[in-house]
Amino acid sequence: MAYTKIHGVLPPMITPFKENGDVDYEGFASNVRRFNEAPLAGYLVIGSNSETAFLSEEEKLELVRLTKENAAPGRQILVGSGLDSVRETIRLTNACAKLGADAALVLTPSYYSDAMGTKNLIRYFTEVADNVEIPVLIYNVTKFTHVNISADALAVLSRHPNIVGMKDSNGNVPQLATELRVADPSFQVMTGTFGAWYPALTMGITGIISAMANCCPEPIAEVQALYDAGRLQEAFDLYQRWFPVNAAVTGKYGIGGLKYCADRCGYTGGFVRNPLLDSTEQEKKELDAILAAAQN
Amino acid sequence: MAYTKIHGVLPPMITPFKENGDVDYEGFASNVRRFNEAPLAGYLVIGSNSETAFLSEEEKLELVRLTKENAAPGRQILVGSGLDSVRETIRLTNACAKLGADAALVLTPSYYSDAMGTKNLIRYFTEVADNVEIPVLIYNVTKFTHVNISADALAVLSRHPNIVGMKDSNGNVPQLATELRVADPSFQVMTGTFGAWYPALTMGITGIISAMANCCPEPIAEVQALYDAGRLQEAFDLYQRWFPVNAAVTGKYGIGGLKYCADRCGYTGGFVRNPLLDSTEQEKKELDAILAAAQN
Amino acid sequence: MAYTKIHGVLPPMITPFKENGDVDYEGFASNVRRFNEAPLAGYLVIGSNSETAFLSEEEKLELVRLTKENAAPGRQILVGSGLDSVRETIRLTNACAKLGADAALVLTPSYYSDAMGTKNLIRYFTEVADNVEIPVLIYNVTKFTHVNISADALAVLSRHPNIVGMKDSNGNVPQLATELRVADPSFQVMTGTFGAWYPALTMGITGIISAMANCCPEPIAEVQALYDAGRLQEAFDLYQRWFPVNAAVTGKYGIGGLKYCADRCGYTGGFVRNPLLDSTEQEKKELDAILAAAQN
Amino acid sequence: MAYTKIHGVLPPMITPFKENGDVDYEGFASNVRRFNEAPLAGYLVIGSNSETAFLSEEEKLELVRLTKENAAPGRQILVGSGLDSVRETIRLTNACAKLGADAALVLTPSYYSDAMGTKNLIRYFTEVADNVEIPVLIYNVTKFTHVNISADALAVLSRHPNIVGMKDSNGNVPQLATELRVADPSFQVMTGTFGAWYPALTMGITGIISAMANCCPEPIAEVQALYDAGRLQEAFDLYQRWFPVNAAVTGKYGIGGLKYCADRCGYTGGFVRNPLLDSTEQEKKELDAILAAAQN
Repeated sequence: MAYTKIHGVLPPMITPFKENGDVDYEGFASNVRRFNEAPLAGYLVIGSNSETAFLSEEEKLELVRLTKENAAPGRQILVGSGLDSVRETIRLTNACAKLGADAALVLTPSYYSDAMGTKNLIRYFTEVADNVEIPVLIYNVTKFTHVNISADALAVLSRHPNIVGMKDSNGNVPQLATELRVADPSFQVMTGTFGAWYPALTMGITGIISAMANCCPEPIAEVQALYDAGRLQEAFDLYQRWFPVNAAVTGKYGIGGLKYCADRCGYTGGFVRNPLLDSTEQEKKELDAILAAAQN
Repeated sequence: MAYTKIHGVLPPMITPFKENGDVDYEGFASNVRRFNEAPLAGYLVIGSNSETAFLSEEEKLELVRLTKENAAPGRQILVGSGLDSVRETIRLTNACAKLGADAALVLTPSYYSDAMGTKNLIRYFTEVADNVEIPVLIYNVTKFTHVNISADALAVLSRHPNIVGMKDSNGNVPQLATELRVADPSFQVMTGTFGAWYPALTMGITGIISAMANCCPEPIAEVQALYDAGRLQEAFDLYQRWFPVNAAVTGKYGIGGLKYCADRCGYTGGFVRNPLLDSTEQEKKELDAILAAAQN
Repeated sequence: MAYTKIHGVLPPMITPFKENGDVDYEGFASNVRRFNEAPLAGYLVIGSNSETAFLSEEEKLELVRLTKENAAPGRQILVGSGLDSVRETIRLTNACAKLGADAALVLTPSYYSDAMGTKNLIRYFTEVADNVEIPVLIYNVTKFTHVNISADALAVLSRHPNIVGMKDSNGNVPQLATELRVADPSFQVMTGTFGAWYPALTMGITGIISAMANCCPEPIAEVQALYDAGRLQEAFDLYQRWFPVNAAVTGKYGIGGLKYCADRCGYTGGFVRNPLLDSTEQEKKELDAILAAAQN
Repeated sequence: MAYTKIHGVLPPMITPFKENGDVDYEGFASNVRRFNEAPLAGYLVIGSNSETAFLSEEEKLELVRLTKENAAPGRQILVGSGLDSVRETIRLTNACAKLGADAALVLTPSYYSDAMGTKNLIRYFTEVADNVEIPVLIYNVTKFTHVNISADALAVLSRHPNIVGMKDSNGNVPQLATELRVADPSFQVMTGTFGAWYPALTMGITGIISAMANCCPEPIAEVQALYDAGRLQEAFDLYQRWFPVNAAVTGKYGIGGLKYCADRCGYTGGFVRNPLLDSTEQEKKELDAILAAAQN
């Protein structure tokens, strides 16, 4: 399928590992199949929550292939194929495109974070977008990259014919407003965290790629459905009820905590890879309580 | 009058200085009288935007007195009477109360910013609130204090009988949501920046204390009026139109820029005090353009 | 006495409080008298470690008076009289001068930390230095102020006839080298932390104002004496042995911990003032172990 | 040759690129040959200054091969083979070892920087060191990784039989003192910046891997030679004279500036790769002046 503007929720899919550190491909494929039953618009594979930084290229491509093989028709497939190297990003993105990826979510380069100014990001994304065979979305996530794309860079890049949108995971709502204001009207701004979902909806944002969708996609979709139906107070109340779950799995408890919650909710979470750490028993109890409070 | 929950806009009033650095009390009083004609719920005097850190106690009290003397009936008067010292805060707050202040907006203590944890802030605000004669509102503004009040501290403090609300100037909308969630239902969360105003309104927040109100109070009130009337898209569009003015006067151009804009809009801005710097001619031209873009 | 270049150690003296929060003036005076027996070049009163942010002006002046009254002849008396307000800084500094202060250690203004660029600091210190009756030393301590004086500002200010030196508490040794390089040769750069003492000595720095001197002045002086005697390895080893004590009382354990150590070493530490917290029993045990390791 | 403790200077070698972005292998090899004439202890290839984040694996291995082929006998060859992935780090390190690398300088993993605590770093480096065929040195460079290895992690890791040292590029001299204090006596702490070189020497540190060595290795070696000869003041003066060159090429002017200086000093600097930017003409003039000031 061709990439189209997103209305709804995408999980940035986790990669379950076995205890020995190997990828649990079957667990991963079963997650995709189970996600097919959930109210989702598509899938992001090899994104930040996939521990992509710990994957070999071979593993990444196999995960993309499995996503395509198992995804229900109509679900869009995005790949987190951005690397610091322009050439490697182009090569990996095009390899993913051959396997059926619909669009690439490309991280801002970050190794020399202090040097990544407006001109650098324009130079980078222009060369990438000029050379890949699928549409590009910009991925802005300062907590991981220590880079924050400027309004000036976005004003230029959003007008590139092959840059169609962005995921902003910073949870900075005034920055989302700025992005909506300066970007080309055709460009889609999405939020990358449930923590900003309700306010994002009130500003006309219609897409979200949220870690919490790995365990609990339904309330994310339900907040949007309520909002779209004009039931704003109910949408806000549901957002508030699930807020602590999102804060837990994207903050204090990290990817280990997210995987535990995925396990608890019927998905295959599995182990993390070194140097991350799996949740301790104490952390699991705390997460149980946080989940229970939202589910009640 | 007694302090009541705020519905609307308060300016954190600037203090105009003469070229020799003296306070221009007449200019200040004329600002209050002109504000009486604007759609405002009240006034904050000796807050962050007043350069209160550069004022003597005598000057602070005279500004409070002048505010009371010139304010229209029904306008609530808040005073930014917080200091690092508990005892000095109590003394200054009660002196302001005697002059007619309705409530105190008390800054988190900040000199030992790294040490200001949950227990420290609970200890501080409890002793202050126990000993002042007017209600206390907490003032959270991390860009100045490098302190950010925790949800745990707020959960406790919002239940103190003499702590009635807070101004959060961080512009962090998910944090506003958290504050609404953990605070006592009677506690009023306000935003301290127009940059978060529209999303704040969508979450049920009804009060704002915004630097931009020193020059342009009308669009702030109008965003709220449109929102209250159910005209969400118009409210959002107006918020977007004035967003750059707020970003300019609270960010890049600072208090010198805010004062220039106040002068341009018919108020008395005046000079800043050392160590701040007045706007350069180049900055004034840039501000003219930013104002003009919003006014069109 | 007139201020002269410092060779040696000054304690930034703590202010002991009683359990009810009042200043324990007698405890303070007894500390000065006991310091008279220690290898010290003078005293800093109402500096950062004195909880000066929590003191009234009356209390500050009484502490200065008591220092003068009790200090041994030849001990220089510095006062931490810097405030954000230029006018208040001048007024307080001159009041301290009348009580016998030899020099003023003036903090960079910090409330609008993001705005405190080179021009602002030059403007501030120039007006202060032009108007006070005793020599000025600049106090640079980014962990408290979130301001870091630039080399460009220092190059200018170090040539002001009434600005004679600085205390840099950042522990950033390359920055100390830069300060030595750009400042006027007559200007004295001192370190404000024992953590940088040995490397500072190797660069020709001869003065230190160190929190640790409140409990353990002797090893600080001894490191310098060994260095001056050409016994570099012994100086370095002693520095390493006491390094953890300094790290404890300036970092994790804060002023409460410093006061506990002062009590343990025969001085009057006393209570902290709200919003700080006194050391817990557990913290006291940890501090006992850290002190014991250095003393052995 | 086998890795031995380093006494002296290593350049973290730049990778010259052609204008079309291809690696200029001949330029690189000629740099190695010219370095053979300079007072250097060895070479670091594919480190931070090599733009390694923009290189393919094939390019990395060819650069290692060329280094081995061209390096003079007795020069130790270190490889910057650390990646976030443990498995990829092991694989790349062992491939480099086969090509003749003597030791691996392994970056702290950094993608999930907030999660990289003591336990995570111990887990990571232990598995790497257990599985590579050459000794491991830890590379701590917070400005790029936003991770800072703790004393607790270092105390453990420095006792691993295959972890022999570290390069700390933070320029934090008190932290270097701490590392020397907590590490196993056999473990070699090196500084990664000329900005800390003189104070590092005074603490017994004997090795440096400095970006400035790409253009000006001689003064770095000369500072050490003077220090070793007991001519401390001359060593310090020379350090001060060259300090601004180091500050320029590691700070404001970045890798583009470093490459320009390499060109100016007779090496092949060449172009940077996207997303970095080459120095502008204005920047080149400023760098000329900074170089000239040091050379006089």
